[in-house]
Amino acid sequence: MYYVGIDVGGMSIKAGIIDENGKILANQFIVTEPEKPSDEIVEDIARLIEDIVRDYGITISDLNGIGMGFPGSVWDQKGEIVYCCNINLVKVPVCKMLTARLGVKNIKISNDANCAALAETRFGAGRGALNSVMITIGTGLGTGIVVDGKLLTGNRSAGAEGGHMQINFGGPTCGCGKKGHYEAYASATALIEQTRQEMDRHPESILHKVVQLYGLNGKTVFTAAKQGDKVAVGVLNKYIKYVGTGLVNFANLFYPEVIIVGGGVSRQGDVLVKPLQRYVSRNVYGSKYNPKIKVAAAELGNDAGIIGAACLAMN
Amino acid sequence: MYYVGIDVGGMSIKAGIIDENGKILANQFIVTEPEKPSDEIVEDIARLIEDIVRDYGITISDLNGIGMGFPGSVWDQKGEIVYCCNINLVKVPVCKMLTARLGVKNIKISNDANCAALAETRFGAGRGALNSVMITIGTGLGTGIVVDGKLLTGNRSAGAEGGHMQINFGGPTCGCGKKGHYEAYASATALIEQTRQEMDRHPESILHKVVQLYGLNGKTVFTAAKQGDKVAVGVLNKYIKYVGTGLVNFANLFYPEVIIVGGGVSRQGDVLVKPLQRYVSRNVYGSKYNPKIKVAAAELGNDAGIIGAACLAMN
Repeated sequence: MYYVGIDVGGMSIKAGIIDENGKILANQFIVTEPEKPSDEIVEDIARLIEDIVRDYGITISDLNGIGMGFPGSVWDQKGEIVYCCNINLVKVPVCKMLTARLGVKNIKISNDANCAALAETRFGAGRGALNSVMITIGTGLGTGIVVDGKLLTGNRSAGAEGGHMQINFGGPTCGCGKKGHYEAYASATALIEQTRQEMDRHPESILHKVVQLYGLNGKTVFTAAKQGDKVAVGVLNKYIKYVGTGLVNFANLFYPEVIIVGGGVSRQGDVLVKPLQRYVSRNVYGSKYNPKIKVAAAELGNDAGIIGAACLAMN
Repeated sequence: MYYVGIDVGGMSIKAGIIDENGKILANQFIVTEPEKPSDEIVEDIARLIEDIVRDYGITISDLNGIGMGFPGSVWDQKGEIVYCCNINLVKVPVCKMLTARLGVKNIKISNDANCAALAETRFGAGRGALNSVMITIGTGLGTGIVVDGKLLTGNRSAGAEGGHMQINFGGPTCGCGKKGHYEAYASATALIEQTRQEMDRHPESILHKVVQLYGLNGKTVFTAAKQGDKVAVGVLNKYIKYVGTGLVNFANLFYPEVIIVGGGVSRQGDVLVKPLQRYVSRNVYGSKYNPKIKVAAAELGNDAGIIGAACLAMN
C-alpha cells in the first residue's frame, strides 16, 4: 500500500511515499515560502505530491491516502489548519482543497508533534505500545499523546498542549507569555538559558571554556558534563529534574507503556534518558503496584514527520 | 433496561438499580466492614445486589449488567481491585467472583472518581459532552477523564491520577509523600489548612470568629467571605488560583467541552465555579482560536457513585 506523508515546516516541506509498515519508499522536499498566499502554498504541496508519485513510478490513483503535519494549530476532524507558526496558513480547509485538486478522498491532517508521536508509537521507540506520550524538545516543547492506539487531540483538536502545563508558580516566562510552564523549563531554549546563567556565574568552569571554543547550544552542557565539569553536571541534573517533572505528570495522567523523548537533545541518548527513566520510576504515583513505564529516546529522527503524517491516513 | 450500580466507600456500600437513562429506580446500602476478609466483603456485595433486586420486584436474570466503583486502584480491564484505601481489598478478582456467585456476565469495575466522571458526563453537568474532566474535591482530590465518550484509564488502569500532578516546586506535602502536588493545594483538606493559617494570623478577622462559632471546615472560608471579610476573600482567591491552575493544565492537555467540579466544596456553586470559569478561560492556551471550555459544578451529588458504576456496564 502507498501513502504520502507531508511534513510542513518553516524551512522546508518534506514529502515521503510510505508503505503500511512505516517504511519510506521515496522522499523529496521543497523550500517553504512562508509568506505566499495560502492557496499557492497548498498548490505547492499538490505539485510536490504529484512529483514524488510520478518520480516513484506510480500514479495518484495508486495512493491509499495522504497525511499532513503542520507546525501550529490544526482542527483534525474538520481537515482545517487553524493557524500556523510563521507560515501564512490561517483557517485553510486544506483537506477539501487537495481532495478537489488531486481527487484523493482519504486526506488527513494534524499537528506536527502529534504526527511524530504517532510515528514513534507505531514504528519507532514505542513499537507495540497502545498508550504513549512523546515530548519533542526543540525551540519550544511539543507533546503528542496516544491513547488506545489513537491520537488524543481534544475538542476541535485543541488539546495535547503539554508544553503549556504549569509545573511551578512563577519561574521563567513561556513563549505564550505565562509563567512556570513546562516548556519554559524543559525546551532546548530553556536548557541553553540555564547553561548560559551557570556559565556566567562560573568563568573558571570547563562549561565556560566549551562555550568559548564551540559557542553555546543545546549540546554544550552535555559536552562539559562528559569531561566531569561539576558546574555542567549541576545544570544537567537540574534540567533532568525539570524534564522529569513533566514526564511524571504525564505518567500520572496517562499511565502509558512508554514515554518517548524526541528533538535534538534526545540524540544525547542514555546520558539523558537513563536519569529520566530513574526519575519517572521513582516519582510516578503507585509505582509499587503498577508496571514500569519505559522512557526511551525517539528513533526515527526527522523522518518521524513524514511517517507520522502518513500514519494519519492509515486508520 | 436494568443495571445495578455499586459504590463502595469507607463508611458504606451503596447499591442502586439504574435504568439506561441514568435514573435511579431503587437504592439501598449496607455499612462497610473494612477489616473483614475480602471474600466476605465480596459476599456482602453479592447479598446487597440480591436484596435490592428482590425488593424492587425483579430477578438477577433481568439485569443487563452490574458496575462497581471502589476507592482505590482498580485494574478495570482485568476486573481486579489492586488495592483499596482503608478497606481490606488487595488483588481481588471481584468481577470473576461475582460472575461465579450471581451468574451475571456483564460485570465491570473502576475507581470511584472515574465513576463520578462518567455519571456526570453522561447524565449530569456534562450532558452532551464527548470529552470531560471531573475533579472531586474531598479529603484528597480525585480526577476522572472522559475522552471520546470513554474513560481514560491508561495502561492497567493506573492513570487518571491528576491529584498527583505537580504544580509547584516545593510547597506542601501531598498524602503520597511528594511535594507540590495539585491535591496538596486544591483538596478540601488543603483549603482547611489554608484557612487555619490565615485565621491564626488574623485573630481580629471575621474568619476567626466564624471558626469560633461553627468550627473549622471546608465551608468556613465561604461563610466569612460572604460577610465581606478581607482575610477570607484573600484565602478564597488564592484557593481559586490553586484549583484553577490544575484545571488549566487539564484544559491544555485534554481540551474537553466541560470541566466538572465535584465534592463537598462544589456545593458552594457560583461563588466557586464562576471565578474558576474566568480563570480557565483567561489562562488556557490558544483560547482565541478555540471554543470556550465550560466549568460547571457537579449535579448528581452522592448519586454519581452508583449511577457512574452502572454506566460502566452500559457500554
